[in-house]
Amino acid sequence: MPINAERLLGDLRALAQIGKFETGVNRPALSRDDMAARAWTCDRLREIGHEADIDGIGNVYGRMKGVDRAVLVGSHTDTVPRGGWLDGALGVVYAIEIARCIAESGVKGTGVDVVNFQDEEGTFLGFVGSCLFCGEDVSREIAAARNKDGTALTRAIADAGLSGRVTPQFDPKRHRAYFEAHIEQGPRLEKSRVDIGAVTAIVGIKTFRLKFRGESNHAGTTPMDMRRDAGAAAMRFGVEAGERIRAQGSAELVWNIGSLRLEPGVANIVPSLAELVVQVRDVSADVLAKMEPIIRDTARECAERYKAAVDIEPMLDMKPAVMAPALVDLIRKSADDLGASSVALPSGAGHDAQVMSRHVPSVMLFVPSIGGRSHHISENTSDADIVRGAQVLLRTVERFIAQG
Amino acid sequence: MPINAERLLGDLRALAQIGKFETGVNRPALSRDDMAARAWTCDRLREIGHEADIDGIGNVYGRMKGVDRAVLVGSHTDTVPRGGWLDGALGVVYAIEIARCIAESGVKGTGVDVVNFQDEEGTFLGFVGSCLFCGEDVSREIAAARNKDGTALTRAIADAGLSGRVTPQFDPKRHRAYFEAHIEQGPRLEKSRVDIGAVTAIVGIKTFRLKFRGESNHAGTTPMDMRRDAGAAAMRFGVEAGERIRAQGSAELVWNIGSLRLEPGVANIVPSLAELVVQVRDVSADVLAKMEPIIRDTARECAERYKAAVDIEPMLDMKPAVMAPALVDLIRKSADDLGASSVALPSGAGHDAQVMSRHVPSVMLFVPSIGGRSHHISENTSDADIVRGAQVLLRTVERFIAQG
Repeated sequence: MPINAERLLGDLRALAQIGKFETGVNRPALSRDDMAARAWTCDRLREIGHEADIDGIGNVYGRMKGVDRAVLVGSHTDTVPRGGWLDGALGVVYAIEIARCIAESGVKGTGVDVVNFQDEEGTFLGFVGSCLFCGEDVSREIAAARNKDGTALTRAIADAGLSGRVTPQFDPKRHRAYFEAHIEQGPRLEKSRVDIGAVTAIVGIKTFRLKFRGESNHAGTTPMDMRRDAGAAAMRFGVEAGERIRAQGSAELVWNIGSLRLEPGVANIVPSLAELVVQVRDVSADVLAKMEPIIRDTARECAERYKAAVDIEPMLDMKPAVMAPALVDLIRKSADDLGASSVALPSGAGHDAQVMSRHVPSVMLFVPSIGGRSHHISENTSDADIVRGAQVLLRTVERFIAQG
Repeated sequence: MPINAERLLGDLRALAQIGKFETGVNRPALSRDDMAARAWTCDRLREIGHEADIDGIGNVYGRMKGVDRAVLVGSHTDTVPRGGWLDGALGVVYAIEIARCIAESGVKGTGVDVVNFQDEEGTFLGFVGSCLFCGEDVSREIAAARNKDGTALTRAIADAGLSGRVTPQFDPKRHRAYFEAHIEQGPRLEKSRVDIGAVTAIVGIKTFRLKFRGESNHAGTTPMDMRRDAGAAAMRFGVEAGERIRAQGSAELVWNIGSLRLEPGVANIVPSLAELVVQVRDVSADVLAKMEPIIRDTARECAERYKAAVDIEPMLDMKPAVMAPALVDLIRKSADDLGASSVALPSGAGHDAQVMSRHVPSVMLFVPSIGGRSHHISENTSDADIVRGAQVLLRTVERFIAQG
């Protein structure tokens, strides 16, 4: 069954008008434009004949009528501030188009439900929509959540007119699988000229904030052996931790020191404080578990070497989420059917599929990102890749339904 | 000849009232309080019988009458913002007390002239007072100099009422030596429990700003081998340059990376820019000359390793200044005479003596700094150490005069 490429691209471009910012979009969760994009999703689903509404957190759930089993297809339409036009939106528009194709072709036994989750990007609380959809208890996190401006999530929910609405629960009797398409947000598909990524797992993330504490001294009058140089300790940590992590990690492991600052930060004063954030990601929980002692031991050794102290504060700790191997295979077979090349790869970024995978067999399909760019107005994917991705995902859904 | 300890400490404390800020002082060059401290210096010198005035840049020069040869003794009374009470002031008050003692004892052949230089701390232009005093051409630098608020040095000179005043020239026929006492500003004397430092040289300084340029990428979705990580290059530079500098430098060499910042500076984004300032100091011009290629080569290698580029911008380049060995000996012999312990050591910080040493045999005497602290309101030296230092410097001047 072919998807309607013109209709698909038309929907994507129409959605990109809502909160348009230059070549990107600006739709932070629960903003006016975010809510408008959710209303737009609802309208499209009702046009197909789905029973669709916005729930108490802002999720849009569209339920195909006349079936008691369904695959769930979806993603999110909220964005980071001044983000790209495809992140999230692509997966939602794919879901609408696939539901429409299946509806038009006449449903047989298993239908297609569509979901557009709230706040995947963490404007207030990342994945709050999918967590609530699945009945996970995040009430404490919701009560505490605020955006960067200090607005409480509870306040924003009320202001968006969502108070009192019921959040539909995931239905394990009805929902047989979850499919989410997304741009890759990285360079691998483009660099290797592969059409489709079949996501095997979403990496887990461990993040630590390290504060090396030394003593600020005049850098001319203080001999090297009388210094307590927090900056030197931090730089050596960066090098040595990197080497140890590489040696102990998997081939897929990535790590980053993205933030590092010195105090007082003056050329001729030995730094008294060096604060950095180190982040490691891997698909294996066992590999990630080995990283914390490496980071702690290396930090302590580097601090001691420069007579500094170090505080280590664990921050984010997200477990890896394994996608259903049978569904990964199904994507690759569907790509084969259509003459599209494919590769199995992990997702280095988080997605609602990691929440869904705790409740139902889930999988993600990636299409190439031009230049690997995302979370930026320059984010893009060629029309041909967009259409091909939708076709492969529709094929995957068809194959899944055909399996009964 | 004994100095008058009470008078000396009284003068120091009186001077510390001018621009007093908590336990320190705030007398940036050409500020009202700086000019008041210079007027105070003039008054003290006239009381002794010196011919004293403030010149066209704000130097105070006090000329002992009735002699045609003199040693110059002095320092500066301007301070860094919210600085300590002894930095500079100590050397000026020592000079006043020594001139007073020599005047009281009856001058024989060689007198004591006193100088209080302008802007040693570089509020507008470091060492501008001593440079002009010695007839060095700094007219272009003066025309361009501004303070942090953007006020031009020429404007500040006019506002201080100094326009049209003549800057007295250093007189090689009259001036036979320059002596400057100062707090150590470092921990060496205190840690080794030595009373007096006889300064052998003022270190030269080379400073470079390095900008490592990579590419900002999502730290989860970009494999390690596809990154251009400016931060990793900078941290490795910090470690490797340090090791090579240590191996190639002298025992006295010190170096510092006091400032380092990453862009965009976010935990989950690979840094696209890492900017740092590296500074090396040594008493040997030959050793310093070896440092630039080490820094350049290491920076280039570290950049290449992470597929980054690097720009290297030379900033400060100050030559080392050697103090007169005969005067270093004279300080140490004078300390011996008085039962004070002494050590020959370099100065890691800059002083007007480095300018003076280009024109006349010069030397500096250091007294211990409590905790090595300076440029801070907590800067201090015990009364006993202050008095002992003045006594040793008077003894040194007496010995010098006695030599004829």
